[in-house]
Order: sequence, then C-alpha cells, then structure tokens
Amino acid sequence: MSDFKKPKIHYYQNWPDLAELGSGCLIIADQRFEDHLWIQDDPFCYFVKSGEELKDLRGFAEHIERILALVDQIPQRPLKIVGMGGGSVGDFAGFVASVLKRGVGLIHVPSTWLSAVDSAHGGKTALNVGGIKNQIGTFYPAQEIFLIRPLLQGQPQERLHDVLGEVLKICLIHGGDLWKKISKLPELEEKHLWKFLPDLIEAKYQIVKKDPQEKTGTRHILNLGHTIGHVIEAEAKLTHGRAIFLGLQFALAWSRHLKIMTEKTAQEIGKTQMGHYLLDPAELKKELRSLENIRELLSQDKKRVESGLRFVFLKAPGHCVVKTVTIDEIVAEVKRQAAK
Amino acid sequence: MSDFKKPKIHYYQNWPDLAELGSGCLIIADQRFEDHLWIQDDPFCYFVKSGEELKDLRGFAEHIERILALVDQIPQRPLKIVGMGGGSVGDFAGFVASVLKRGVGLIHVPSTWLSAVDSAHGGKTALNVGGIKNQIGTFYPAQEIFLIRPLLQGQPQERLHDVLGEVLKICLIHGGDLWKKISKLPELEEKHLWKFLPDLIEAKYQIVKKDPQEKTGTRHILNLGHTIGHVIEAEAKLTHGRAIFLGLQFALAWSRHLKIMTEKTAQEIGKTQMGHYLLDPAELKKELRSLENIRELLSQDKKRVESGLRFVFLKAPGHCVVKTVTIDEIVAEVKRQAAK
Repeated sequence: MSDFKKPKIHYYQNWPDLAELGSGCLIIADQRFEDHLWIQDDPFCYFVKSGEELKDLRGFAEHIERILALVDQIPQRPLKIVGMGGGSVGDFAGFVASVLKRGVGLIHVPSTWLSAVDSAHGGKTALNVGGIKNQIGTFYPAQEIFLIRPLLQGQPQERLHDVLGEVLKICLIHGGDLWKKISKLPELEEKHLWKFLPDLIEAKYQIVKKDPQEKTGTRHILNLGHTIGHVIEAEAKLTHGRAIFLGLQFALAWSRHLKIMTEKTAQEIGKTQMGHYLLDPAELKKELRSLENIRELLSQDKKRVESGLRFVFLKAPGHCVVKTVTIDEIVAEVKRQAAK
Repeated sequence: MSDFKKPKIHYYQNWPDLAELGSGCLIIADQRFEDHLWIQDDPFCYFVKSGEELKDLRGFAEHIERILALVDQIPQRPLKIVGMGGGSVGDFAGFVASVLKRGVGLIHVPSTWLSAVDSAHGGKTALNVGGIKNQIGTFYPAQEIFLIRPLLQGQPQERLHDVLGEVLKICLIHGGDLWKKISKLPELEEKHLWKFLPDLIEAKYQIVKKDPQEKTGTRHILNLGHTIGHVIEAEAKLTHGRAIFLGLQFALAWSRHLKIMTEKTAQEIGKTQMGHYLLDPAELKKELRSLENIRELLSQDKKRVESGLRFVFLKAPGHCVVKTVTIDEIVAEVKRQAAK
C-alpha cells in the first residue's frame, strides 16, 4: 500500500477566521468571490474565471507568470496555494501547487457540493489539452480541506442536482448503511448533504487510500457511471453531475442485462426512492439516441487498455465488478438501451 | 525517510538493442540524434532542440499537443517517456512524463557527461517561466537510466570541461576515497569519467535518498557551489558546469575566510591537482568583478528563506556546513573576493 496521506478535513458551521488558513498563502479563487468579505482584504489573491477554459493548457503559462509575480511578494515560507471554488478551480489550483517551485502546500476550500463531496478529495489535479479533458495532471493530495457550511449553502439551488450523480455513485460503491440511508431520502436537500458529508467523504477515502495513484486498479471502481457519463457530458453539454447520474443509469441497466446484477437486487434498488430514479431510463434514452460520434469519444478515454476499456459494473450496492469490454460492445449496448 | 525508489541504472559498453527500452515508449530526443542509427527507424520519436528555450513554459502547450498526438498512436500500455539528450532534454522529458496522463514511466538516456553524472539522477524535472529557470517542475525519478559509453564518448571534447564542476562538487561533498582518487588526477579524461561513473552516481544517491523532495534540508548540500554558480551562469553566459566550478571556488574561499575550513585543510586540498585548480581564483575574480545586478539575481533564488539564503560551506572534503546568510553578506563577500 502506498503512503497516501489523508488531508486534514475541517468542518465549519460558520465562516472561520481567514487566519485559520495559516501563513504563506496565495488564494486562487473563483472571481465570483472577488467582493466576498472573507477574502476581499487579502493582498495575495488571484482571481480566475471558473470553467473548462481555466483548465486549458494554452492559457497556463500566462497564469503561472502572474501567480509567480504574486508569490514572490509573499514574505512567509513555506508557500501554500489555497484553491477556493468548484471543480475546475480545484483542478487548476491543485495542478499549480503540484508544479510551482516543484510543489508547494495545498489547501482546498470547495465552494460547490460537487467539489465538497468528490473532486476536492483524492488528490487528482488536471488540465485540458486541445479541448480534451484532463490530459495532463498530477496526483497531489491537499494537506487540508476546509468545508464551510455557509459557503456551500450559498450556491444556487440547481447545484444540488449536479451533485446527485456523484453522491449516488459513492453510495452504490460503498453500499451498507450509507446507501440505505441516502437511498430512502425522497429528495436530496442541503441539510442532508451537510449531515452525510463526512460519511460520503470517508467512503471515497476508503477506496483512494488503497490505490492513490491508480496503479493497482482498485481505485478504478470510482469510475462507476463515468464511461458513458463523460461521453454524455461532452456531447449533450450537461453538467458533470447530471451526466454522471445518466452514466450510472447506463451502468446499472447494462449490469442487469448481463445478469451481473440479479433481478432480485435490481428490484430491491428500485424499491428505494433514489433507486427508483436510477432505474428510470427516460432521459438517458433520449441522450443515448443523440450520441453521434460515440466510437470516437470512447477512443479518447484515457482509461483505455489495449483490448478495450475497463468498464465498472454493479453487482449490488457495495459490490462493483470491473470487466474489460471492447468499444464495439459498448456501442452495441448504447444502441440497445437507446432502442428499448 | 521517504520511499525514494532508486532507478535501475544500466551501464553499456556498446550500444544496446533498442528493444532493451521495452514497449510503450515515446522517445523524446535531442534533434542532433535525428539521423542516429539507434532510433532512426523508431516511429515514436519526438525530436526537440535542446537548450533553455525548450524548457520555456510558453512553448509547452504546443509540445504537449504534438506529444499527445504521438502517444495516442502507441498501442502498448503502460506508456513510457524516454528522454535522450543532455540536461535540458532530461528536464523537459522528465516534466512531460510526470504530468502526462497524471504520470507515465520515465527512462533517461543521458547523452552528455553532465547529465550522466548529475541531472539524470535525483528526480528533479523543471521548466522555466518568464526567463527564470526552473520555476515549475516536479520530483519524478526515472525508473531506469541507460548509460551508453559510445553515446557519451561521442560528445565534443569541450563537454569534458563542462562536467568538471559537478564532478568535483560531488567528490568534495562525499569526501573519502572518491575525493582522494579524483583529486589527484592531473586531468579529467573520458576514461576516468566512465570508470568513476558508478561511484559518482552512487555518491549523489546517498544524499538524494535521505531527502528526495528537499524537505528535510539534507539534500540542500548538493547546492555546494550553486549559489554564486547560478549567478555567474546567468550573467556571464558560461556553461552550467563551468559556472559551478567557479561557484565552488567561491564557496571554498568563503569557507576559508570564515575559518569554517582550516588553513591546514585548505593546504591539503591545494596539494592535490584538482584542489590546486579549485583554489586558484584568477578566472573567478574576473567574473565576480563583472557581476552587476547580483543583489537582484540572488533575490530570485528559489532556495531563499525569509531571512536570507542557505549557503553551503565546506569544512573539509566529506563535510559540508549549511548556514543562513543575508544577501548583504553575500554581496560583501563577492566584493571582497573580487578585490583580493
């Protein structure tokens, strides 16, 4: 087992004092926080526009030049990069921290539920190259993660939908009590997310710590729902979370079709409120029908192996099965599910 | 102690079969090897022009786009980057390997004595930002290093001068038999370098493995001669190796002036042929006199601490002493040595 160091995770019911971040910090923050009380007086803030363009390698040199000009003014050492924002800001800030002066400290302050539940944890950083996502990056876990309730609750309501896919993914992978409790909720509300945040995060670390750098394959199960999810995200321009929700539906339906999941298990899942949503293929069908260049998109998948792709199936909550499938098999299954 | 994994080092008296590199390789090679028999038929070669421009972050996106287009054609996995060239090619190829798809395999095939002795070992990769060297980078040791005698001996003769500074540096740091044997050579010839290569390399790994990511400070002694060496390199446009030789002279003279090194030790060093060269300040004096903006150059040193710089002094061969000195103190010592 590798020497993965789990970040210190701090849960704050209210805004903590800025000084809690410690000294030597450069805050890389989503520009929507530019006037935010918490950081408006900090001289060492670098504001960025969140989104995929931020992660484009073509713009990286200019960002780094500006960032270096700022950090050279920071008197304290060691340096720390604080990433305050959603997934794209976290990916960017994490990559910056991992390469700046061959690696400086990193603190994540996720501002979206999606990043608070998922992307801030596990140490993946990434930039995009030539329009293709996450072609370069590093494994670089944060030292600390600040989860601030009023920051997370300040998001627009629709962001709650974005996180549902990743929440259900981790619950299905983890199984047990976590799946039982979340699956019977009639709806995922902010109060539930805040309440279950420590359990959801811990479920992810249980997998990450076994395979922090994706070397043994254990961590690959975190891609449940992502093979088709990523294709839908790219093609249908849905949010990541929504696309992953549909990708989960695809994975569950395929698992059932191949009898990796028994009908009995499928029925048990379907009896829960969340499971019912997951087994309802209406929106997925629509999206699958509109997928044109699926073969090409799948060929770019960086988890490709020589003979195909490693696809994550679900036998039952808490029990994933990884099988290598050919691109032809995936395309055929997409057609089957689109036609059903 | 960290889990530093020492690369497998292969010494070849003759050109090995290209197949020794294994499968899944993209060779990033200095363009001067474009017609070289060893690789001219390999379809997965990316040729680069060596030098500092290669390491400029501004050109990195374009390089990576081309590199990705090539690696996507390589059927085998896992991927490996093979860096074939001198220090700049190694720094570049190493950085590429460390971030490509969040890290792929890395093999160094150093083509200069300087990279064979020093830069290929120790896992440092780097790019330059805004004309300042090594502002971003990673710690990413190669898995394997190929040392090929005819490749190294194919270099122009003047490259032998380039390596002298780093060879004497590691001998002074290591002390013992290595210093004794090398210091009494009348001249450093290729046959000596090849003969002592394993010992010189092992001496470096003994330090690197104690502090692979420069966290404890142990590794800092490898900067012996580099504080002023880097300034001279930047200002006088000397080669790295030559500048480090002069930087060593400066460090030894300062150590002596501060009585960190006793006169008796200095005399013992001076009795050896190499030690005699090291204690002769004629060229150093000339370079120190022409240093104009030394204060500014020292302020950019990335090893800066709040109160100054950690300077490596030599008490005796095998015994370095690190002290924090202010920039004022260095500037005063430069003036003193320039005036002597």
